[in-house]
Amino acid sequence: MTVPVKLAVAGVGNNISALAQGILHYADAVAGGADIDALPGVRRGSIGGLAVYDVQFVAAYDIDPGKIGTELYDAMLRPPNNYPRLDVRLEPTGVTVEQGLTDSDEHAGPLSDQIVRLAESLRAAGAEVLLYSLPTGLQWAATAYAEAALAAGVAFVNCTPESVGRDEELSTRFIAAGVPLIGDDLASHLGTSIVHRSLLGLLAERGISLHSSYQLNLGGNQDFRNLRDRGASKRDSKLNALAKAGVQLDRVDVIPSAGFVAHLEDHKVGYLNIEGVGWAGTPVEIDLKLKVQDSSNAAGVIIDLIRIAAAAVRVGEKGFVPAAVPLLKSPPKGHGAYTELEVEASYDSLAARIA
Amino acid sequence: MTVPVKLAVAGVGNNISALAQGILHYADAVAGGADIDALPGVRRGSIGGLAVYDVQFVAAYDIDPGKIGTELYDAMLRPPNNYPRLDVRLEPTGVTVEQGLTDSDEHAGPLSDQIVRLAESLRAAGAEVLLYSLPTGLQWAATAYAEAALAAGVAFVNCTPESVGRDEELSTRFIAAGVPLIGDDLASHLGTSIVHRSLLGLLAERGISLHSSYQLNLGGNQDFRNLRDRGASKRDSKLNALAKAGVQLDRVDVIPSAGFVAHLEDHKVGYLNIEGVGWAGTPVEIDLKLKVQDSSNAAGVIIDLIRIAAAAVRVGEKGFVPAAVPLLKSPPKGHGAYTELEVEASYDSLAARIA
Amino acid sequence: MTVPVKLAVAGVGNNISALAQGILHYADAVAGGADIDALPGVRRGSIGGLAVYDVQFVAAYDIDPGKIGTELYDAMLRPPNNYPRLDVRLEPTGVTVEQGLTDSDEHAGPLSDQIVRLAESLRAAGAEVLLYSLPTGLQWAATAYAEAALAAGVAFVNCTPESVGRDEELSTRFIAAGVPLIGDDLASHLGTSIVHRSLLGLLAERGISLHSSYQLNLGGNQDFRNLRDRGASKRDSKLNALAKAGVQLDRVDVIPSAGFVAHLEDHKVGYLNIEGVGWAGTPVEIDLKLKVQDSSNAAGVIIDLIRIAAAAVRVGEKGFVPAAVPLLKSPPKGHGAYTELEVEASYDSLAARIA
Amino acid sequence: MTVPVKLAVAGVGNNISALAQGILHYADAVAGGADIDALPGVRRGSIGGLAVYDVQFVAAYDIDPGKIGTELYDAMLRPPNNYPRLDVRLEPTGVTVEQGLTDSDEHAGPLSDQIVRLAESLRAAGAEVLLYSLPTGLQWAATAYAEAALAAGVAFVNCTPESVGRDEELSTRFIAAGVPLIGDDLASHLGTSIVHRSLLGLLAERGISLHSSYQLNLGGNQDFRNLRDRGASKRDSKLNALAKAGVQLDRVDVIPSAGFVAHLEDHKVGYLNIEGVGWAGTPVEIDLKLKVQDSSNAAGVIIDLIRIAAAAVRVGEKGFVPAAVPLLKSPPKGHGAYTELEVEASYDSLAARIA
Repeated sequence: MTVPVKLAVAGVGNNISALAQGILHYADAVAGGADIDALPGVRRGSIGGLAVYDVQFVAAYDIDPGKIGTELYDAMLRPPNNYPRLDVRLEPTGVTVEQGLTDSDEHAGPLSDQIVRLAESLRAAGAEVLLYSLPTGLQWAATAYAEAALAAGVAFVNCTPESVGRDEELSTRFIAAGVPLIGDDLASHLGTSIVHRSLLGLLAERGISLHSSYQLNLGGNQDFRNLRDRGASKRDSKLNALAKAGVQLDRVDVIPSAGFVAHLEDHKVGYLNIEGVGWAGTPVEIDLKLKVQDSSNAAGVIIDLIRIAAAAVRVGEKGFVPAAVPLLKSPPKGHGAYTELEVEASYDSLAARIA
Repeated sequence: MTVPVKLAVAGVGNNISALAQGILHYADAVAGGADIDALPGVRRGSIGGLAVYDVQFVAAYDIDPGKIGTELYDAMLRPPNNYPRLDVRLEPTGVTVEQGLTDSDEHAGPLSDQIVRLAESLRAAGAEVLLYSLPTGLQWAATAYAEAALAAGVAFVNCTPESVGRDEELSTRFIAAGVPLIGDDLASHLGTSIVHRSLLGLLAERGISLHSSYQLNLGGNQDFRNLRDRGASKRDSKLNALAKAGVQLDRVDVIPSAGFVAHLEDHKVGYLNIEGVGWAGTPVEIDLKLKVQDSSNAAGVIIDLIRIAAAAVRVGEKGFVPAAVPLLKSPPKGHGAYTELEVEASYDSLAARIA
Repeated sequence: MTVPVKLAVAGVGNNISALAQGILHYADAVAGGADIDALPGVRRGSIGGLAVYDVQFVAAYDIDPGKIGTELYDAMLRPPNNYPRLDVRLEPTGVTVEQGLTDSDEHAGPLSDQIVRLAESLRAAGAEVLLYSLPTGLQWAATAYAEAALAAGVAFVNCTPESVGRDEELSTRFIAAGVPLIGDDLASHLGTSIVHRSLLGLLAERGISLHSSYQLNLGGNQDFRNLRDRGASKRDSKLNALAKAGVQLDRVDVIPSAGFVAHLEDHKVGYLNIEGVGWAGTPVEIDLKLKVQDSSNAAGVIIDLIRIAAAAVRVGEKGFVPAAVPLLKSPPKGHGAYTELEVEASYDSLAARIA
Repeated sequence: MTVPVKLAVAGVGNNISALAQGILHYADAVAGGADIDALPGVRRGSIGGLAVYDVQFVAAYDIDPGKIGTELYDAMLRPPNNYPRLDVRLEPTGVTVEQGLTDSDEHAGPLSDQIVRLAESLRAAGAEVLLYSLPTGLQWAATAYAEAALAAGVAFVNCTPESVGRDEELSTRFIAAGVPLIGDDLASHLGTSIVHRSLLGLLAERGISLHSSYQLNLGGNQDFRNLRDRGASKRDSKLNALAKAGVQLDRVDVIPSAGFVAHLEDHKVGYLNIEGVGWAGTPVEIDLKLKVQDSSNAAGVIIDLIRIAAAAVRVGEKGFVPAAVPLLKSPPKGHGAYTELEVEASYDSLAARIA
């Protein structure tokens, strides 16, 4: 029988709510007879022998006073979290949310008391993987949590754009310590950018020239509230992704947060417009609206990263694991560094040795 | 200097208007300094050494009394044709539309007087290629025009779903006679089906399960008027294309002609809806509207088929030419019969030997 | 305390499922403290002293063998009915679906045995109102049920376009017998047509000229399946409605059933496109998608017609009741025959006298 | 024969380009036989005897060095202006753009040298009306231009939200001087807000409760670039307009500038989403996209305000003219101060006395 991944989480936001409820949802489905290899919304039934529901929460850290000291399943349903309450039964996890690192730790050195405390907490909990999913923009926090994981010998998964997995110095130290380090920045399960890129690619392949295009995104969760302030950097990162796919940027505009619309809650809405030039200069026009559950989009990728990290721990891999490449926006050496075959081989190696 | 393709056309509908005006449009553009390898709306600047404007009309056949006996450029602008009049200068082609085959020829044998007359006309015109683009559904006409081309030793391109290129007996006779035969059924340059397939493929790749989907098409040209009556077969053919791409058909519906809306004229509008099931059963919804110039969509593919056929004639290839595979809905042995490399090699062989 | 309307229904389709479940839904809501005058989806909290949940089913007729002899609440959930099963508790109504009139009754005279049997059943059930909502197109059935209602002295409500309420001869006989007669043809609660008309009206008011417009409708219930065959007459009726609102028909096209898409079930989807010409000939373009629960759209109007008919019975009004005008597509003397004030006065008279 | 309105303009932006080209467009159309009372995009063929093309530019003021000293028709086509160049012939107006008021005038008193100079320029040009359409947000400029108009005895039309027409002190002085004063803030010809309001009103009228709604706007002209900074106040003003129409604001969000998308140029795109609750709690959903030429939207209203102001001058009316109420967002006493009949009577009075 499979031993579940012992998971610690830094940040108890919507992503954790989506992850935890989804895990129970699929456990119920499989108990009810669903085929583990054909679960709706799941890319891989098994990674390294681990099913999507083979996850056990063992520790959680946050700085929200309303969450600290609370049972994890209660904390993850508290506002401002607004992921929907799914139709699953939540039994106590036995995990109480602990005080996370705070701004006062920002300028602490790598071996600050706080980090030492955190490393002890991780060890005490027996964590195999620490999932980092705080709000975007806190480089110091990402680094500090990574240091704590390293000190505790726990694999680290970074969901945010902060530089951790692609920080060479840090990466070298994880390798030296024999610990997996997976990052950076979650690729969305199915977001506006990948749809945009697919359609622009299709036009190019068919010889339709791009006249102009735009992409708008709006949502109602904390991420969108935060995006209002740092829209510019997100815009650059989305445009970069399009540029890598060969799109001429002078014809395309991307607005990552066209608006925070509170009643959308954890839904994300994207609008795309593409105007192309076809045979004899005649126009081609595409309008698209995409609506997704934002944190489901994240959880569907997180579940794979967690399993990759845990399987790597169990088979003795260290540092970055190539299987994670397609699941990240900024893997250490970029997307081109591994072929599809190497990615699949990485999955196989996780599975093969565990048997 | 390149000798233009000598082209005969059976059927003087919107496709011919789009083709003829487009050829002039690009000739103007290149004369004005445009890069021949980056013309908007064109997939390949050169095929077998032939540019998109290297086409000369030498004969045309139709059964509309309003078109017969008329200068080709006048005929192609007459109603019910409703492709827009582009901003290009139309000088007389010197080609007068001749009487095409009529229903009375339907039960004539392969060597009927009519076919003999047509073969003579093709020979007299010096045609290299006969392009067949009559309304869909006239199998007898497709066969008869192919017989005439064969008798005249002229390459044949079939734009319609009728069985010609994939008719083995006919194909054998074209090969025996050393004449190229390209068909069947034009793949759309950029139509609702390819967009639908791309998006469904993207969802599948991302592990989003399909809950349901539909596709609606409407337009205002003769094709849509005709589709009203034979929507069922078109629906089957579109569903088959999706099935080949691995889509579960019980979740998808396709309505090839949701409506004939006269004021859309030669525009085609497609609506797509896709509902998927993501992580933890949460929904993913996509709505898309696509608007294209229907006959531009055809002409952008026809121009490549004509050049393939003519280049094949000139380099001495016979029967089917693999370069045409991606441009057809029903190539003789299906889409799987040739790899991408073989398709590219076919293009190279057309180009290499002509030099 | 209010005595509920004793209601008999001819036809146990989606409309009855929507009506019955909705009645329970609102009874629950009000029991839970909701304000009776602010119920979501309800136009008038009270009509003639009757709340939306003051309805008791007393008889039901259908010809589907799977429904006859079955408890009404079971019958209304059977396929091909596909209105969703709402979250309300269905307790047995005590009403068993009886055999309705069949085609063999089509040429029976007004006093056929079948009609006599039906009238007796209505009387035995103590019905106050007979609601007629069979599939569209059965003029003989609409007339025969109306005859039965008249014979039994039961008010009649016709939801379909068949001519009953506007049949002068029949109307005269209902008046003579002192029985209310309400029809014909349900105005949709919120359908594509009213949205289309509103937007076209707005453009006209603003001086934007109409260039062209179209409207498409699709759905997955029996109505849409039937519409495939009689799309033309429905198209005329929708165009007439637009014409009455002053829209130039040469610029507008309406496709009542662009498609039957089974997985839409009882949802109805409408697509609108409007192209206008603004200042200096520059374009104005509107694209709209509307999605509604088709039978909810009907039930939200039916509930008002039933209450109007019952209140009319109780206060002794006969023949047509002006309060029903805005709820019908084809009221006896057209929409212009009564002012808004007269309509409101009619509502008042139903309410005043019952007190 | 009608004497054209002698018009001076403060600000030579897209609105002036749209106005000037539109005037020529309609003059051509009528010369070509178009019915003056049925011009596409025009609300009223004649106001006070003035046709839409009865306008003569006599003076223009701007502070853009690239426009000052330039022929008006050249200046209005210069960037950042990006209204399209319509297919009309632009002959020199004979008007050279003069230096407008600058920030250094901001703290000048009402009789500053600059204002005196401007008043003289207006008088010398024989202007009847001064149209103020500078970028939003310059209250001092709006006031200063109004002072100049007052000093010169020229009617003033304020297109912006700055307080001029509703400034009681200023208004009293215009009345005392016998000069018309029309403002404030242009109502859009057909914008997202009026469409939003119409649809929300329709839902309310039909008893569909509002669950939630949002409105997004994007564009590519200077107005949208400016909006980025003052989105909040514009949002409030749009929400206020909805509130006045009876919409519950807690369910609606409005994003006036979701994005500046340069390639949209002078087009404005609005996206609306409305989710309602129908019978039995079942959902109603509307999605809408609106695309308009932004400055055409303004010019179609400006042309009426100019004619009202000029007709008022000619018939001796002073201060505010009720005919302008429906064309303004903030008329002096609000929209409720005049009935529709009073508005029409105002139009009549402008027309009657001129005869």
